[in-house]
This record gives sequence, C-alpha cells and structure tokens, in this order.
Amino acid sequence: MSSTVGENLRLTLFGQSHSPAVGMTLEGVPAGIALDTGKISSFLARRAPGRSPLSTSRREADLPEFLGGLCDGVTCGAPLTAIIRNTDIRPGDYSLFGKIPRPGHADYTGAVKYGGAGDPSGGGHFSGRLTAPLCIAGAVCLQMLEREGITVRSHLFSLGGIADSGDITKDELCPDFPVLDPERGRLMREAIEAARAEGDSVGGAAECAVLGLPAGLGDPIFGGMENRVASVVFGIPAVKGIEFGAGFSVASMRGSESNDAFARDGDRVITKTNNCGGILGGITDGMPLVFRAAFKPTPSIGRVQKTLDISSMSETDLSIPGRHDPCVVIRALPAVESAAAFAVLDALLGRKKEL
Amino acid sequence: MSSTVGENLRLTLFGQSHSPAVGMTLEGVPAGIALDTGKISSFLARRAPGRSPLSTSRREADLPEFLGGLCDGVTCGAPLTAIIRNTDIRPGDYSLFGKIPRPGHADYTGAVKYGGAGDPSGGGHFSGRLTAPLCIAGAVCLQMLEREGITVRSHLFSLGGIADSGDITKDELCPDFPVLDPERGRLMREAIEAARAEGDSVGGAAECAVLGLPAGLGDPIFGGMENRVASVVFGIPAVKGIEFGAGFSVASMRGSESNDAFARDGDRVITKTNNCGGILGGITDGMPLVFRAAFKPTPSIGRVQKTLDISSMSETDLSIPGRHDPCVVIRALPAVESAAAFAVLDALLGRKKEL
Amino acid sequence: MSSTVGENLRLTLFGQSHSPAVGMTLEGVPAGIALDTGKISSFLARRAPGRSPLSTSRREADLPEFLGGLCDGVTCGAPLTAIIRNTDIRPGDYSLFGKIPRPGHADYTGAVKYGGAGDPSGGGHFSGRLTAPLCIAGAVCLQMLEREGITVRSHLFSLGGIADSGDITKDELCPDFPVLDPERGRLMREAIEAARAEGDSVGGAAECAVLGLPAGLGDPIFGGMENRVASVVFGIPAVKGIEFGAGFSVASMRGSESNDAFARDGDRVITKTNNCGGILGGITDGMPLVFRAAFKPTPSIGRVQKTLDISSMSETDLSIPGRHDPCVVIRALPAVESAAAFAVLDALLGRKKEL
Amino acid sequence: MSSTVGENLRLTLFGQSHSPAVGMTLEGVPAGIALDTGKISSFLARRAPGRSPLSTSRREADLPEFLGGLCDGVTCGAPLTAIIRNTDIRPGDYSLFGKIPRPGHADYTGAVKYGGAGDPSGGGHFSGRLTAPLCIAGAVCLQMLEREGITVRSHLFSLGGIADSGDITKDELCPDFPVLDPERGRLMREAIEAARAEGDSVGGAAECAVLGLPAGLGDPIFGGMENRVASVVFGIPAVKGIEFGAGFSVASMRGSESNDAFARDGDRVITKTNNCGGILGGITDGMPLVFRAAFKPTPSIGRVQKTLDISSMSETDLSIPGRHDPCVVIRALPAVESAAAFAVLDALLGRKKEL
Repeated sequence: MSSTVGENLRLTLFGQSHSPAVGMTLEGVPAGIALDTGKISSFLARRAPGRSPLSTSRREADLPEFLGGLCDGVTCGAPLTAIIRNTDIRPGDYSLFGKIPRPGHADYTGAVKYGGAGDPSGGGHFSGRLTAPLCIAGAVCLQMLEREGITVRSHLFSLGGIADSGDITKDELCPDFPVLDPERGRLMREAIEAARAEGDSVGGAAECAVLGLPAGLGDPIFGGMENRVASVVFGIPAVKGIEFGAGFSVASMRGSESNDAFARDGDRVITKTNNCGGILGGITDGMPLVFRAAFKPTPSIGRVQKTLDISSMSETDLSIPGRHDPCVVIRALPAVESAAAFAVLDALLGRKKEL
Repeated sequence: MSSTVGENLRLTLFGQSHSPAVGMTLEGVPAGIALDTGKISSFLARRAPGRSPLSTSRREADLPEFLGGLCDGVTCGAPLTAIIRNTDIRPGDYSLFGKIPRPGHADYTGAVKYGGAGDPSGGGHFSGRLTAPLCIAGAVCLQMLEREGITVRSHLFSLGGIADSGDITKDELCPDFPVLDPERGRLMREAIEAARAEGDSVGGAAECAVLGLPAGLGDPIFGGMENRVASVVFGIPAVKGIEFGAGFSVASMRGSESNDAFARDGDRVITKTNNCGGILGGITDGMPLVFRAAFKPTPSIGRVQKTLDISSMSETDLSIPGRHDPCVVIRALPAVESAAAFAVLDALLGRKKEL
Repeated sequence: MSSTVGENLRLTLFGQSHSPAVGMTLEGVPAGIALDTGKISSFLARRAPGRSPLSTSRREADLPEFLGGLCDGVTCGAPLTAIIRNTDIRPGDYSLFGKIPRPGHADYTGAVKYGGAGDPSGGGHFSGRLTAPLCIAGAVCLQMLEREGITVRSHLFSLGGIADSGDITKDELCPDFPVLDPERGRLMREAIEAARAEGDSVGGAAECAVLGLPAGLGDPIFGGMENRVASVVFGIPAVKGIEFGAGFSVASMRGSESNDAFARDGDRVITKTNNCGGILGGITDGMPLVFRAAFKPTPSIGRVQKTLDISSMSETDLSIPGRHDPCVVIRALPAVESAAAFAVLDALLGRKKEL
Repeated sequence: MSSTVGENLRLTLFGQSHSPAVGMTLEGVPAGIALDTGKISSFLARRAPGRSPLSTSRREADLPEFLGGLCDGVTCGAPLTAIIRNTDIRPGDYSLFGKIPRPGHADYTGAVKYGGAGDPSGGGHFSGRLTAPLCIAGAVCLQMLEREGITVRSHLFSLGGIADSGDITKDELCPDFPVLDPERGRLMREAIEAARAEGDSVGGAAECAVLGLPAGLGDPIFGGMENRVASVVFGIPAVKGIEFGAGFSVASMRGSESNDAFARDGDRVITKTNNCGGILGGITDGMPLVFRAAFKPTPSIGRVQKTLDISSMSETDLSIPGRHDPCVVIRALPAVESAAAFAVLDALLGRKKEL
C-alpha cells in the first residue's frame, strides 16, 4: 500500500502536512536495543526547515514523541511508533490549489485520485513533511546498523548544475555544507541564492554510500538491493531517478570496462572497481553500496507560472505566495540516508531467516 | 520476497536457467478475459535468444504451457500459471564458476548468500532466463491493458554510446530494429558487431512509454508509480538505473523550467511539457508515463578478465568459453514493457478498490 | 507481521498497556467518507473498563484522537491514524511477573521471545488494552459497511457454562446485557458474581453475525472468509477457538443434513438452512455470516495459583493482587464485531478490483 | 491473496481440479537442505484417493515433479516449485452445476464471484485436489522441522459422531487407520460404510499436535500461532472450525481451572496441564501445540437433494452421479499436518530475524 514499505522490517508513515501530527510505525525492530534519542533529534535537525537562510521559513521543533515500542529507552519488540506534532499549521493557504493546481505538485493528481476529497493543505500526505517521520525511522535504523559496523553517508552530488568532486566512500564531508569539495559547495550556495533572488528554485542529485556491509545481503529478482533501495527512495518527494554504481554511464561502456574484477585485500574478497555499486545479482558483494538520486527543483516558486483553472477549464497565471525553499536536496539528504538505512537493515534482518 | 512482486496483482517467478522449467504465477487476474495465446508467443519471441545473428546462440522455442487459471482460453479467476520447459540445458558448463567467480555475475554473491548451496548453472535463479516468464506475465497484462485503451512501447534509447533520436510517445518504430531512427539503429548494430569481434559486449538504455493512461493511478509515498515501476524493472538482470520523465537532467534545471504547465486539450487536462514523465506525487496525470532503464554490458565476454580463485584466494585470469550475447538490451525490451505493463495494471486494479 | 493484518485494507495496532498511548493506523480507507466520531466513542464505550460493577476497575475515557487521514471529519485517502492516551499507568505493578510468570498470561512466552527485553507492564503489547484501537478501526469499518447496508451484531453465546437462547440473526438484544434471552443473562451475571466472590473468573463464547452481505465476497483457499475472519479474531486476547455456521457440530452430521439446500426468496437465492454460516468455498453466499469465538476465563485471578519462579526454577505460589475483571467476554464483544467488520470490509474492497 | 499464505515462508498454490496440473511454489526455503523425495511421495500417498475402499475412486499417481529450487535433490535457495499433472480429467461431468448448484459446494458462490467465468470442473480452484500441492509443501516443511527435532502428528479426533480416545501427544497411532483406539476406529469405519450404503457422507474432526517446539515462536496480536495456523487450516476445503488446546470447552471453565500452572521438568519450564494448547499470547510455551479442525461431511452425496435451478429460479431435485468419497477427513489428515508444519516453520524462520 501507499504508506507502508518493507519485508522483515515494516515502516508505515502517517499524517499530513497540516494534520495534528505526522508519525511512523516501525514493526520488526528487535527487542533490547537501547536508542539514543538525542542522536535521533540531531539527525532530524538536519532535515528541519528554518535552520538556515537557504531553506524555507517554516520552523518546527520536530521532537519525536515515542508512543509505543520503547521501555526506558530500550526497544521492547512491540511496534515502534513515534509522532511529531504539526505546530505551524496554516490550512487556509492551500484552498485555492484544489481549483487551480500548482505545476509540479500533486494538487491535480490528488484531486483526481481522491475525487476531490483529498487533503489539499500543504500537499497533505504527499508533503515533504512526511520525510520527518521517515527520518525518525532512519535514525533508528542507523543506530542498529552502527552496532553491526555499518555506516551511511551522503553528499550533494550536484546542485543547480554544479557537480561536487571527491569520493563519498572515502573523503570527508565539509563541516558546514554537505559536500566533499568546499569550493563546489560555495558555488552551489551561490546557485541557490541566485535562484531565490529570481523567485525560482534549483534541482540537484544526492549521492549516498553504505559502508561496512557484509556480502550476501538481498535476494534475487524483485528482492534485489536495487529494488529495495529504489522502493524506499522513490517515497521521498521530488525524486525522479535513481542509479547504482556507475549507473546510467554503464549504458555507454563495454563489458571489459564495466565488469569489476575480483581481487583480494588481505583475506577479504574485493573488486578493483565498483561500477556495480556493491551489488551483483541484487546481492551485496561487500564493497560500498553506492547510489544517486535525482531531485527535481522545488515546484513551489514565486515566479508567475502558467496553469489551468480546472473549474472553468481556462488557462491562467499562478503566483505562489510566501517564501519557498529554493532547493530541497540539502534537507533531503537525511531522508536519502534513512531510505538506505531502512532498506539495508530490512535485508540484514532477512538474512537471519535460517534454520 | 525475492521472486514475488505486486499488490493487487501478484507475480511470482520460479525456476532457474537450467532447472526443468521456468515459469510464473499471476494472482489477481480478473475472470472472464479471453487471452490470445498467439500474441503471447509473438511477444515472447521478441526476447527469445537465437533469433538474430546479434544475440546468443542458445535456441529455445519458449512456448508457454498454461497449467492453471485458463478455461478454454479464458481466465477463470484462479491463479494463472504458465511454464516454459528448459530444453537446452548444459549444467556442466558452469561448475567452475563457484570457485572462480565471473566478474559482473552473481556467482560470488550467490555463493556467499546460499553458503555454496546455490544453483550455479547458467546463473540459476539470477539468470536472464527468468525474463521469459516475466514476459509471459507481461504479455497477459498488455492484453488486459489494451482492453482499457492503454498501450506500452519501448525502444533502444541508446546502445554502445549511440543515442537514438525521436519521440517514443509519437514516432514509429523501425520494422527490423527497435529504434525510431534507422540510421542510429545501423550505427548501434555496428557497435554490437565491433564489440563481438573483440570478444566484448556493449551496454545500453531502454526507453519505455505507457500511453492512454487515465489520471489518478498510483498512491502517495511508497505506492507511487515510480516506486511500483522501479520495483519491477530492477527485477530485470543488468539494470543499474531508472529515471522518469526528464530524469537525472532535472537535477540541473530550474523550477520554472522543470514544472510542467497545466493546459487544456479539448476537455482534457494536459501538461505542455512532460518533464515529470506523467507522474506527480506518485500519481499519473494522464500524460504518457515515460521512463528509461540503464543496462550494463553483458558480463559474459570472451576477452580474458582478471578475477579471484576463491578457493586459493589467488588472482587469476578467466576466459569465458562459448558464444555470448554481446548486448542484452535488445532482447530486454519486452521485459521492460512487461515490467511497465505489470506495474500499471496492478495500479489500475487497485484504483477500483472503492465502495 | 505481528501487529498488522489485512489485504485491501491494512490495520496496524501499536502501543502497549502502559506506554504513552495505544493506537491504530488503517490504510486503504476510501476518501470522502464522513465519519461520525460520536458513534466511534459510543462504540468504544462498550469495551471500556470501569463502566459496570461486573468488570475491572481501571477507568479510562478512551477518547480517540485522530492524527491523520481526516479533514473536517471526512476521510481524505491518507492513512487513518488515531490514538488513545494511556492515562492510568502503573508500571510498577508488573515488575514481578518477569521472574514469576502468571499462569495463562504471556509473561513467560514474552520473556523467552524478547530475551527479557519485552515490556512486562500490564501485558505490554499482548494486553487486552490493544482491543481499544482495534475497536476504533472496527467503528470506522462499521460506518462504512452501514453505507452498504451491512450490519454486524453479537451476543454472549454462552458464559460460565450458561448458554443464551435465540437467533442472533433475528432476535433483539436485551437493552442492558448483551444476550437475547434476559433470563439467561441474569444467570450469567450470577455466574460472574459467584466467580468474583471466589477470586476466580469465567470463560465464555461470543457469537457474531454479519447481515446484509452480498454473495461473492472472499476468495478461494487462503483468502476465504473463514481465513480472513479467523486471522483477525485470533488477534483478540484469550480467544482459543472459532467456528462458522454449525461449526464443530458438523463433525457429527451426515452430508444430507449439513448441506444447505438452495431455494428462492422472491428473486433472491437463499439457503433453507445456514449450517455453512453464509460461506461456501470461502465465498459469501448472501446468507448471514455467522461465527462463534471461544474466550478463556480471565487469567488474572485473586485465588492462589501454582507457578514457577524462573530465576530459581522452584515452584511457588502466586496471588495476583488488585481487582480483576472476572469475565472479559462482555467487553470483548465490540472487538469481535470489529474483527468481523474489518474482515468483511477488506473483502468488499477487494471485490471491486476489476477492470 | 487467495492462493498465497505465509510471511517468512510463502506458499502459493495453483491449478484447478481439471486443469493440466496443480502445483505449489514455496519461497523462503533455506538453501542446502537435502530433500528426501521418497518421503514426499509417501506423505502424498496418505491423501491420495483410490487407495482404500473407503474413499473416492479417482486414481492418480500424484508424483510431484520439481520444476525449480532443487539442485541434485538439495534446495538451492530459489523458489521451490513442484507440480502434479492431472491425468484423470473429465470436465464434461460438471457443466450442469453452473446452472444447478450443488448444495455445500462453491458452485453458486464461485459463479457469483467470477460472473459465470469461473472454472466449474471438479470445483476448479476450490477443489480438495488443491490439498495435493499443499501436501507437497507440507512434506518439505516437515523434513525441515525434523532437522530441528520438531514432529507433527494427527488422528481422527471424531468421525460420524464417534470420538477417538487417547492422547495424540503420547499414544501410538494404529497402523491401518489413523486413530489411537482401534475399537473406535472400527466403529468409525462402520459409520462410513453405513453412510456410503445410504448414498450419504459423514463429517469428522482432526486433531493435530506439534511436538518438540521451542518456546518463543510466534508474535503478538495478528501474528500469534493461532492466527498463523488458522490462516492455513481454513485453506483446506470443508473446515468449519478450529480450536486450540481445550478450545471451546474453555468457555465453560473457571480461570482457576483453565490456567496452566508453570512447573519444572528437570531444567525445562513446563505447564502441568495444557489447556492453552502450547500457546500463550500467541507465542509457543514449549509444550505441544495442539489443535482440532472440524470438517463438514462431503457435500457430494448420491442421495437426492433439493436445490435451485438458477437459470429459471425454480427449485429442483439434484442427484449427483458417480461414486463419492463418503468422508474427506481421513485423507485430509496430511493436509492438516501440512498446514501445521508450514505455519510452524514460517514462525521458526521468523524467529531468526535478529541482529
């Protein structure tokens, strides 16, 4: 169904942008895991709006309340449910968009799907706001992965046409902006500011790596790591593409070039290159699992756009009032990491289904 | 699980490359649909090996036998199961690869996952052979979609670095090669022949469009059309990336450029551009659903490659004997169409879950 | 997984007896249904403790708060999530039972399953408290079924060895006690009082009927109405058996006796008897769907019981302090109706999956 | 969906009574398990018709052919698929029943569900024939359970009103008839013969015990062992009730009587009685898991019955020609054991999902 994903670990997201709360239920979490709620809050802070001059002005504390599944901070085996109250709700802002759909948003498709009964406020259940509970789940998964020696990291692979440089599996992230190369980061920030100044927005791509994975995770065919990661990553609004390892560039390669030669590193089996992104036949090979996700530019822009008044079927101009986040990719990075962490932990728990 | 996908329609693939048969079960097919088995066979013929000098020499008739779910050629509501016998089985060819894994194949990851008990012959359950039952399912889904006025088409978006030109939503396919531009097709064939002559292989990308879709299909978050299509498409071996609409190029766009303006075409709501690939918020908007999938080059190549002998942990040279298919993308096109057809029909059946 | 059930409609329960809240998420609810929250509260009041001298003294208002899925009281298609705060929490009462498990409770099995990390307070996630969110879901489903002309009713089929008399598909329920025959109800109440006076408890059986069902709901084999109803009903604590129609008595019948003869009633197809409980081959036949569920006596009793101190592996006496509900069946009736309503609505939504 | 069940292990049944074959796919079977196909055939022989004068005259060899998932008799981790050809097909026998539905069969409900397009022959996908592939799956699961020291056994708890005596968890089964008490078995056989002589049939109940189970299997709420076992057992045609441990008799007990006192047996935790059937809170407690399933009498009887001609809506007499199995319970015992074995193995594999 729409709001649930996972096989051994099952995540359900609920709530809408302007409903009383958003939240998540994570079933299948093993009992006895002490969760560091401070780390969960820090992780959530990375996606919170209002923290930087570069993003939207909506400010919310985003402190999760755990309603079940925790006893004195330790998981008890029951479903883990946490919510975040929506405190900054202005439903009145959105009534117009049922009639005059915003380009690039789900206003029109939601209206068709729900026969006009959908929740138009702030995008309803389609809202980027739902990445907050995704990040709660992600923060929980990341803590469990850490116990297994598995870490997840991401950076802005590109933004507004400017590519980062460096190797996400090895290089350090800059302290103040999620890039590997500070000069590229500076250019990206300029691109964001330029777009904002023109009432416009920019797209970008996130790159994410999972390090420390054992070989043998995942399943053939529809249970491959690519399928699993993609199933979750496309749950993040604005993602229009995903690629693993060398990704789309494999289409231009020869086999002799794209095949990753097996080799040894001490007593470990490695590959000399990692064009496959750590996945062969859907199964991890022990190398870093690397993928990239493409984000379209924020569809909410201040510039006047053409759209259709559905009620009169006449074309009209639309100017979306208010301040907008000119680039969602930065705040989406923890959501991307969350998606990866969830998919990997799900596969890891599944690996233990043996006699 | 690994070999099952779908929500309202559930597809299970079974069999291995060299087991007695491969097959599929499709649950949730409505009763009373007359299936044209001739069209199913024709569709399967498009992926069959041995039909052209450009592909592998393994020749199999690939005529499906329906074991259940059909009464006098009409679906009866019971699970639809069909199998294809594996007649050209040479398990002896593959015993080596458990010890000396082929680069780019699942030999190593399968060995780790199954503790050495996996089926190494011909890739086992990881084999491209499993796209044959996927195509049976696809052929069935396509016939049901046609009754709803929905069609699916695909072409080689690129191959060996050569891009096709044209618009898959509008232009005609060439009669003898699945491209829109015959000159580009000629160049692609040359690239394949060149790779074959050097004992090498080439990658490529498939582009697929679903036409005639109503608006309102799909679900928010994890039930979006992107998630659904990706979940199936990554079940096709060698796929390393998928993108919808403008795909990765949205990462370099401004919002004013990527937003598709709503407009009217008679009494229909359309968008003037289709950067979103017919999907907004995971839901179809009534425009063509367009996506591309990147295929890595066939990993089986005649050229000598470096790999590791796992038993001795020593690096070694590997030369894979036999004739190989230098490009899997051509034969994969019906599998891509099948994945799209399955995902769309699944969503379409789900739309009818109303009171 | 443990806390989720359903196919077209998916219900997840979360929370523990003494966690901050219990709640439920119901996915797949069609958009545009106006919910009467007053009726939901009235329905919940039927299961609430503390309403009668016959049940436990724990008193909670049990007013659900909807966190998502509702807009101005109308479903919007997003997952419907509601919670009830746990206001009367005394976790200290239960610390003992991890070491000295109460007979008939999940103290021991939970401790084994969760390696000692489970939540022992009040039964944790195993608690009868979880029937509160089940009843929220049930109340929502019942309102949707009512729009389709389908109603659900139940009575105490037996309690403490005293059988009710009458026909639940036709007769009126007594106003003050959920039986058809007031004299049998009086005897049942006496049985409860007698057990309470002795620090003991009584078991009972609930009978439930779903009226107004169309023929054709459900699926063959594992998707039969029996499977669907049983999957949910066994989610109610203390249920140890379920039977449909004539149930276990069919085992002593001849075929000529148990077969329900088809007949007509005006232009409707009916059966002259209903030994099959309205289900043939797993599919509804248009007659009332009738089933009974057996409830064991409340395991918490004041009388001294034998048990084992797990820490020392020595047998010991246990006396469970506090007031206990000497019969859970009465309060379980709305949970049984909820289970039936959920299973039927799930099947009904599935029936609409057609082209 | 209708024909699939399971969580960690997933079973799909396919085929109809008179389709080319019936079969099953079992996903999630660990790799590296050597299967004894002779034992599978012997197990299947227990449910095969035509083996005794007491059952139907349809004779089929029922030798399964494994199409995938096995390499040299050892599971390879791929889905395990096996089929049995239907060799004794007489579809002509059943054309009448679409118009004049047989009482107690799914003729009418199937016709409504599938809009007349269902497969009426021999009950189609509703047929008891589908217990053959269920038994293949069961035989496979039983072999895996045996490796864990877990065994499953069953007997005729009652038949035609005659109860067996003895304790299925301890006593030996008779060699020639599946009862514990040979004298009761003799009476049961007489009851069957008497029914046959009158063109009638008898019902019965099966009792099944799973021995050697560890404590801690299963999950709370909807994942309890009762839910899991019931979900599969109701997939066997003709089952109208299921009860665990003391079952429906708990409804007449006091808590002090039904509560099973914990005690020790050496260093094992046991209970002195087993009214809970080895399940507390849905989780196994290490005692035998015991349940009973009620089977209605074979609905196909030679005696003239009343039914309705749907085409004319007039009541009519129906006499079902041919020889019929006057009691399905005997042949259903391996199906009941299969259901138990599947549910237990599924839970066992799920227990291993830990970090």
